[in-house]
Amino acid sequence: MKIITVSREFGSGGRELGKRLADELGFDYYDREIITAISKNCELDEKYVEASLENNVWQQIPLTFGSSFISLPVFQSSKTNLLLEQKKVLESIARSGRDCVIVGRNADIILEEYAPFNIFVCAEMLSRVSRCFDRATDKEKSFSEKEMISKIKSIDKCRRETRALISDIPWGDPHHYHLTVNTTGMDIKSLVPAVAQYIRSSFGSREK
Amino acid sequence: MKIITVSREFGSGGRELGKRLADELGFDYYDREIITAISKNCELDEKYVEASLENNVWQQIPLTFGSSFISLPVFQSSKTNLLLEQKKVLESIARSGRDCVIVGRNADIILEEYAPFNIFVCAEMLSRVSRCFDRATDKEKSFSEKEMISKIKSIDKCRRETRALISDIPWGDPHHYHLTVNTTGMDIKSLVPAVAQYIRSSFGSREK
Repeated sequence: MKIITVSREFGSGGRELGKRLADELGFDYYDREIITAISKNCELDEKYVEASLENNVWQQIPLTFGSSFISLPVFQSSKTNLLLEQKKVLESIARSGRDCVIVGRNADIILEEYAPFNIFVCAEMLSRVSRCFDRATDKEKSFSEKEMISKIKSIDKCRRETRALISDIPWGDPHHYHLTVNTTGMDIKSLVPAVAQYIRSSFGSREK
Repeated sequence: MKIITVSREFGSGGRELGKRLADELGFDYYDREIITAISKNCELDEKYVEASLENNVWQQIPLTFGSSFISLPVFQSSKTNLLLEQKKVLESIARSGRDCVIVGRNADIILEEYAPFNIFVCAEMLSRVSRCFDRATDKEKSFSEKEMISKIKSIDKCRRETRALISDIPWGDPHHYHLTVNTTGMDIKSLVPAVAQYIRSSFGSREK
């Protein structure tokens, strides 16, 4: 069984690369499916699960639910529970034994014992800003460049912090990934066959 | 004209990757040839040029020539002159207009205006130690693992510091390279066709 994990800076096109890689390799693809499974298992709303895992919910919720009775420790505990549930979902995907690409969710760490091939996708900030505007919601389209940079930095900060909860290995350190791809100025589609070939060679190289 | 630059951690196999890439792509290959050219142009011994550029000569020479009349500032100035000469040699290679692979020498920075494809090669420390012992000189073969780690760290520190003399972009920051390859546990030879394909796709992608 071969597992590919794709970790990525927000706006770097890592999700697109992951999806296209799965298509190219004929592997299963997991991204939002993981959030859906967690929501189902915990009987929680998907948007809540996503916000809790993707954002620093203990920083944001007090703004949203300022007058609610829910205290900070409850939210921290909730995030911990969701991370544990996420671990279960990832392990059940791995145990299925099917080749797959998993985007995000610190799958590189959680599924370490399955020896996944780990990719990190990064890009220069202006390239990421431009990619974010290209796929922006109506609300985001009214963002200034400065606001978009702030959003990108905030999401990456959360990804770095969530990872620090479960591992000492810093997010984005190229020593932890097999391949680090910089998508600045690149047409992702055209890079996919070469990345797929690299992955095949790497798994072949391990078997020697 | 296409220029590929290969920057690398000491012991990561970057030189091997660079040489094999040049063969695969049919490009010229530059590595020691640059030291030879600088030595010739400056009428200096190759070993001296290499030591000055590869090591922190201003730290090492006082030990070797402790009683000599040569003072620290002279050596610093000498390193600066050699870096300037190196820049001239690199620019003359680029001006030749021939496709090439250049290993080391901060060619990614110096030849930035020629839009090179920049690779960084890294590996986990134990993998680098093992690679260094595999190709060790008789003297190095007697090194303890600790001594080899110390040598590797010292050479990388010098590379980082030499780069800091000419650029604010940190050595090894994946945002500055198009591709960062981790050779830990990999057979470099088997990865070369995929890296070559990635490079071809990347140049193709730019032309669109």
